[in-house]
Amino acid sequence: MKKAAVILSGCGVFDGAEIHEAVLTLLSLEKHGASYQCFAPDVDQLHVVNHLTGEVAEGESRNVLVEAARIARGNVKPVTECQAEEFDLLVLPGGFGAAKNLCTFAVDGPDCSFNEDVLAVCKQFAAAGKPAAYACIAPALAAKVYGNNTNVTIGNDKDTAAGLEAFGAKHQLCGVEDVIIDQDAKLVTTPAYMLGQNMLEVSIGLDKMVQSVLALK
Amino acid sequence: MKKAAVILSGCGVFDGAEIHEAVLTLLSLEKHGASYQCFAPDVDQLHVVNHLTGEVAEGESRNVLVEAARIARGNVKPVTECQAEEFDLLVLPGGFGAAKNLCTFAVDGPDCSFNEDVLAVCKQFAAAGKPAAYACIAPALAAKVYGNNTNVTIGNDKDTAAGLEAFGAKHQLCGVEDVIIDQDAKLVTTPAYMLGQNMLEVSIGLDKMVQSVLALK
Repeated sequence: MKKAAVILSGCGVFDGAEIHEAVLTLLSLEKHGASYQCFAPDVDQLHVVNHLTGEVAEGESRNVLVEAARIARGNVKPVTECQAEEFDLLVLPGGFGAAKNLCTFAVDGPDCSFNEDVLAVCKQFAAAGKPAAYACIAPALAAKVYGNNTNVTIGNDKDTAAGLEAFGAKHQLCGVEDVIIDQDAKLVTTPAYMLGQNMLEVSIGLDKMVQSVLALK
Repeated sequence: MKKAAVILSGCGVFDGAEIHEAVLTLLSLEKHGASYQCFAPDVDQLHVVNHLTGEVAEGESRNVLVEAARIARGNVKPVTECQAEEFDLLVLPGGFGAAKNLCTFAVDGPDCSFNEDVLAVCKQFAAAGKPAAYACIAPALAAKVYGNNTNVTIGNDKDTAAGLEAFGAKHQLCGVEDVIIDQDAKLVTTPAYMLGQNMLEVSIGLDKMVQSVLALK
């Protein structure tokens, strides 16, 4: 049984991990016979967004690890405890949290900063030649980690794609139900809710992502 | 296309809607060709639980509707706006929120109080003879709404089952991948995480619940 490390970035599309993407990714891992352990950085969220109004909840703060525990039903560990040698693959679902809490790409674009602990784990998997999958906006991190003309996708948004190419990655257009695979880097990316209009099409792309990353050797 | 009203109770298994159950239910509705609108009561949660430690987060408060918006990606309405005549069926995923925020069954058992707005909507669907599905611990509400020896399940926990029978419902043992259907009441219930050990088996039961409730006439 292959074992996946899954890095979450909170709980909620506008300030954390995209909930549907995270749940569907975990389901797909189970469905295809893999086990998983969730991780998240033990840091405050960039901010808290009221998901009903879309407005920032001024004065409120939440911790990424604590909120990620909602998706993981309590079973989540600090990302500093993630060792690539204990896993076969790495998976990062999307949501704004990936670009607000794991890095600041959502607000700073290619000049963004990165959570050093998350970046170190991502680099560990890359250096060890272990397969990885990044969904939605999380490929912003993949672009930074892999660079070197590695093929990645965030769908078809030109400005976002240009941001990823600023890290040295090569953006490829991709539909929501499809994936981009870079065989050399052992990297799979899929647009998910960067393009998805409903959960069903997002679930198809994520399932293909999980199957593809599990098939990489 | 059948249209489902889905009542959520927050966002997170220990103080709100069980996230996996909610997401998998919505996915299943899409997969089987139904559309849906999410609703939640605009009230404070009973409490906030830190899902990492399992402890109550003293001094913190969150609103059920606002937190449910995380699962619904913002597209959720106050439950007072739910009219049975606009929908073909009603669905309630579980999580402690169903038994802490929609009613207080988790703390008060059969002596619990009910959110009057939620109870009114549930009763509307029952009175109109429109099918309904309740998962996990949410059948506590179904037992109250239907009573009258209606067949319901929360799995196999004796004390919880006795609590439901105190409302006049008849508890049936049921496996996580199965459902109990009461044809007369047009009611489907499934244990979900009351029994589930992993997301895959919960997804099978919930998918069967959705298919069953969509098939009821």
